[in-house]
Amino acid sequence: MKPIQVGLIGLGTVGAGVFHVLSRNQEEIRRRAGRGIELVAVNRRNLDQARAIVGDKAEVVANARDIIANPAIDIVIELVGGTTLAKELVLEAIAAGKHVVTANKALLAVHGTEIFAAAHAKGVMVGFEAAVAGGIPIIKALREGLTGNRIEWIAGIINGTTNFILSEMRDKGLDFATVLKEAQRLGYAEADPTFDIEGVDAAHKLTIMSAIAFGVPVQFAKAHIEGITQLQATDIRYAEQLGYRIKLLGITRRRDSGIELRVHPTLVPAKRLIANVEGAMNAVVVQGDAVGTTLYYGKGAGAEPTASAVVADLVDITRLHTADPDHRVPHLAFQPDALADTPILPLSEVQTSFYLRLRVADEPGVLSSITTILAEHNLSIDAVLQRESNEGEKQTDLIILTHDTLEGRMRAALAQMQALPTVLGPIVSIRKEELA
Amino acid sequence: MKPIQVGLIGLGTVGAGVFHVLSRNQEEIRRRAGRGIELVAVNRRNLDQARAIVGDKAEVVANARDIIANPAIDIVIELVGGTTLAKELVLEAIAAGKHVVTANKALLAVHGTEIFAAAHAKGVMVGFEAAVAGGIPIIKALREGLTGNRIEWIAGIINGTTNFILSEMRDKGLDFATVLKEAQRLGYAEADPTFDIEGVDAAHKLTIMSAIAFGVPVQFAKAHIEGITQLQATDIRYAEQLGYRIKLLGITRRRDSGIELRVHPTLVPAKRLIANVEGAMNAVVVQGDAVGTTLYYGKGAGAEPTASAVVADLVDITRLHTADPDHRVPHLAFQPDALADTPILPLSEVQTSFYLRLRVADEPGVLSSITTILAEHNLSIDAVLQRESNEGEKQTDLIILTHDTLEGRMRAALAQMQALPTVLGPIVSIRKEELA
Repeated sequence: MKPIQVGLIGLGTVGAGVFHVLSRNQEEIRRRAGRGIELVAVNRRNLDQARAIVGDKAEVVANARDIIANPAIDIVIELVGGTTLAKELVLEAIAAGKHVVTANKALLAVHGTEIFAAAHAKGVMVGFEAAVAGGIPIIKALREGLTGNRIEWIAGIINGTTNFILSEMRDKGLDFATVLKEAQRLGYAEADPTFDIEGVDAAHKLTIMSAIAFGVPVQFAKAHIEGITQLQATDIRYAEQLGYRIKLLGITRRRDSGIELRVHPTLVPAKRLIANVEGAMNAVVVQGDAVGTTLYYGKGAGAEPTASAVVADLVDITRLHTADPDHRVPHLAFQPDALADTPILPLSEVQTSFYLRLRVADEPGVLSSITTILAEHNLSIDAVLQRESNEGEKQTDLIILTHDTLEGRMRAALAQMQALPTVLGPIVSIRKEELA
Repeated sequence: MKPIQVGLIGLGTVGAGVFHVLSRNQEEIRRRAGRGIELVAVNRRNLDQARAIVGDKAEVVANARDIIANPAIDIVIELVGGTTLAKELVLEAIAAGKHVVTANKALLAVHGTEIFAAAHAKGVMVGFEAAVAGGIPIIKALREGLTGNRIEWIAGIINGTTNFILSEMRDKGLDFATVLKEAQRLGYAEADPTFDIEGVDAAHKLTIMSAIAFGVPVQFAKAHIEGITQLQATDIRYAEQLGYRIKLLGITRRRDSGIELRVHPTLVPAKRLIANVEGAMNAVVVQGDAVGTTLYYGKGAGAEPTASAVVADLVDITRLHTADPDHRVPHLAFQPDALADTPILPLSEVQTSFYLRLRVADEPGVLSSITTILAEHNLSIDAVLQRESNEGEKQTDLIILTHDTLEGRMRAALAQMQALPTVLGPIVSIRKEELA
């Protein structure tokens, strides 16, 4: 049978990875797919740079639309990035009847509903394993591996840059700014690292996983997003003393009243496997009602890990494109006519526990005034750590771990505590999850 | 569309789990699969016990063949276990044109080649996600999620009983026999635990993963199998001091000359994620040339985790049964006509490193005589730990970690060392893998 013909738009680092993996493993891939998969045309504005990568093994075109217009091409890989041109190209490819494979998390988190609807109407598939957690087949696990389950929650380290920074901060006791510079020097962080360190990239990926897990449309605008820029080495140390690590987690959880969708630094018990995921690695924990806890770990970025996911999508499309379209794997895991309108909960209704650090005057009655406020808001305390103040010091750190509560209730209590004359600086609050 | 009709043979613990998961999550499953999945008939010899589980929600039949003969049934779930009756039933179901889902690792590790050939000839699918690592979708990850990769090796904790025993031995410093009794009392080990503690169950699962990873037929008879019954608490302690944990691993690795296929206790660096998998949990590490290291973690047994995998197979079959049979996911990941005849390597040609513990006389020249033997066999030493002997003691423990070598070479050296008059007891040797 004639090989599946693939065109690639955006031949950058990942695109080159796709080319190399497809070339190197073509025999292995054909033995698996039952049909060859051939990259026949690639697009990059700079033709010389493109030819330096693919040689004469694929046609090189300067105009992305030439890939889409090519009637020989069955599948278009979009690796342009961004949400403007990429959106146009993906929609045009779909309109032209091409299946699409993309690694573009921002595009799908923001415009997924429109794109998947267009693909469904046209009877083509959009593969996006590479959009979440790089080479880890987490989209496949969620959409196909756990179909018997009612998914309860997902918690993931889905941004390698921030996990690298947090690992370094803990290992070396350094502060955020110092480690960020090191990460940039080593290539783990980009020159403009905003999307990573502010949690936006993680929120894109989380939005996609949440939709797939719970059968709801992608709703990036409703995600609560906090990055790691405010995180202090002090709190990483205190967390450690209490048996916790701090990770930037994307968390989405089904509650009776709606779905939590949030990215923020989180204390996690040090004994949990995910707390031990170090450096630039990614990991996603999925809790299902039948399977219990499962975890998926691997490289979340990089040319070949991402290419691994792109090629898996190519093979899947090669397999499923002859299947009855109604029984292909639905884009959002659930059939388009079976999506739910479960609301995304506002932050005030999120349930979580907290780590609090208060700089307080070292005098009688301070702890009592604080615990009274917590009690008034129905907040129960799990643990308290009061540092011995040094000789002559008049203030000390008070660390409190709470049990689960509504975020809104905690915010109200925090405002009251912050107003106490014995609380001497801004209170640090970091969410905590037991993940059990 | 009419729901897919499913019959279940062998309504035991897992079967009941399948019934409960299918009932409880039927709406969610239908929203995913695009079609209902209905368990219409179950088989168990004791009809009253069967009715106590399914009530009037499914027909109860005493004869398994009534399930197979039922023309309304599309998919047969085999949960009988064993390799005799189960084999007959699976082959009969295939001959009757039914798709089959099974959790039977022994059956597939031993008779997989025959069963998959029959299914291929008949154009039906045999799903077996539940046969390896319970609820972890590892078969799907290997067959579909990593199709772009040349798989290099797999190392897995794929038997919960032995991992529970090893975790307890380490945590509590107890010996094997004591912990085994505790595990039996808690239900983590069966009354006859032979298949688990001798590594046979792990070898069944490893055999299946190895075939899928490397595109070779299942060859259980060629697996090298060692269990944990000889493992001593002393070695767990020494390993700990050297920064290692001891796990029962199933390891399969592609070498230039063939494939390694082996189950044995293994030292693993304590900092590896898999070394921190505790209790009855399972985890599988897969190394691919493009994706690098990935890890999959979850419950490897139990009614609902196993049911989770069975239901995922039911959904997959619901999706793929309308697809062109040549483009369905091949049973062994590679197309049947594209399997390789790469040999399974004999143990002497396996490459690994070693932990050695020698009880030696505490006198000059002992270390030298031993290191000389190692050097003569071209075995290089990574680390040596000599315990201070107690006052008045005339013997001591000598621990040696080696670098990678051929097993055959180590065996020859071990025989020579064992013959030294200064070596006072049987040498303990345990394989060691860096898994990096």
